[in-house]
Amino acid sequence: MLSKTHTKYIQSLQHKKQRDETGLFIAEGPKVVMDLLSSRKFVCKELLALNGWLEQHTKKIALLKDTTVTPVENFELQKISALSTAHDVIAVFEKREPVNTINTSSKITLVLDTIQDPGNLGTIIRIADWFGIENMVCSIGCADMYNAKVVQSTMGSLGRVNVIYTNLIEWLQQNKKVKIYSASLEGKDVKAFGKLKEGVIIIGNEANGVSDEVMELVDEKITIPKAGEAESLNAAVATGIILSHIKL
Amino acid sequence: MLSKTHTKYIQSLQHKKQRDETGLFIAEGPKVVMDLLSSRKFVCKELLALNGWLEQHTKKIALLKDTTVTPVENFELQKISALSTAHDVIAVFEKREPVNTINTSSKITLVLDTIQDPGNLGTIIRIADWFGIENMVCSIGCADMYNAKVVQSTMGSLGRVNVIYTNLIEWLQQNKKVKIYSASLEGKDVKAFGKLKEGVIIIGNEANGVSDEVMELVDEKITIPKAGEAESLNAAVATGIILSHIKL
Repeated sequence: MLSKTHTKYIQSLQHKKQRDETGLFIAEGPKVVMDLLSSRKFVCKELLALNGWLEQHTKKIALLKDTTVTPVENFELQKISALSTAHDVIAVFEKREPVNTINTSSKITLVLDTIQDPGNLGTIIRIADWFGIENMVCSIGCADMYNAKVVQSTMGSLGRVNVIYTNLIEWLQQNKKVKIYSASLEGKDVKAFGKLKEGVIIIGNEANGVSDEVMELVDEKITIPKAGEAESLNAAVATGIILSHIKL
Repeated sequence: MLSKTHTKYIQSLQHKKQRDETGLFIAEGPKVVMDLLSSRKFVCKELLALNGWLEQHTKKIALLKDTTVTPVENFELQKISALSTAHDVIAVFEKREPVNTINTSSKITLVLDTIQDPGNLGTIIRIADWFGIENMVCSIGCADMYNAKVVQSTMGSLGRVNVIYTNLIEWLQQNKKVKIYSASLEGKDVKAFGKLKEGVIIIGNEANGVSDEVMELVDEKITIPKAGEAESLNAAVATGIILSHIKL
């Protein structure tokens, strides 16, 4: 039986402020929890799971040190979940300290300017992991990478990409030695670049694109040509398309 | 004031069965509702909106024939919404009859095998619209294109792509004269195809990919090479990447 205090504590981790203060975050569901446990990139502090799930994973659980394991009933799981339907298990992990000093030479670095949708941010982290991007730089206005929905949509890629949050203008000014590209509705055709060895690629906000202030620091704009009528592409889809053309 | 019966009726359209029986669907929020009204592809039966929104759009509303307009309070809007937060307006539209006989020659046709996530389906319709895909064929197991979350994520592209739901095996057997490609983790590099003038491209389920039965009818598999470690790419992202390489 989950106590009231315990319930409230887990629920409190749905809020960024509480995650920042405690240095903890939540992952939900068998797939994401197992991916994060297997990656060994994050220390697991707590597992709250249905008995069935715990019985299935006794060996794995036996290997965990310093992890509090609490069997819960399904109605308790629903109560502490941030998702509309919780499945089997919720885990509390320690956040990782990002590597704040990024080496941008001889590689592609991804920069996000105010990507606000958690699903988009998680999907972009997963795309970055697919294309072997080591570092991502997020503006302060981006969704929190430890938001439960972001964690969910990274599908286990969370520990494999170094993500920092910083003032973009300052960061870009400090990295002017590397060519700065941005996704844009008007620019050079993405097919014309060939494989790029080095560069910073900026993806802009879902509704407003790259902000004017940031755009002033951009050396070249990349466009995905349109053959139909849609006004724009989803930010994560645009990221995937651009990386597929310049990384492969 | 929204009556109980009216509230229940609008809520009932969140269910596919009810949408099928009435031939109606719901669109939510200023952006999507205005996009669908402006596209003139769908007959609007009802608008339920805050007074502020109605006052802003008096001219547009005056042009609508046979549309019932109901001013609602914010708490009523939240009640009839399928989203976690409703904004300004909810509209009831008539579904469109799809063109069931698709001409597959000299064009790219997109086929979805059990795409279950409504956000993915909506995003794929938007991608299809961007790349000028005229027709999409969905297996019966795909999410319903008139689900509120699908409508939301199409961002206005809903009326511009012809989408049919059918038995994929039968449909593919009837269209064997055109080359059938499928997205796959193991196949020919997407960069090796060049611009394709004609073909059917199959995108598989989020977790399981293209089903074995469908795969038997495939002529060639398309792979997006991986440079990192992620297990897979999101289905909508993969669709965008493949279309960008073979359509542009």
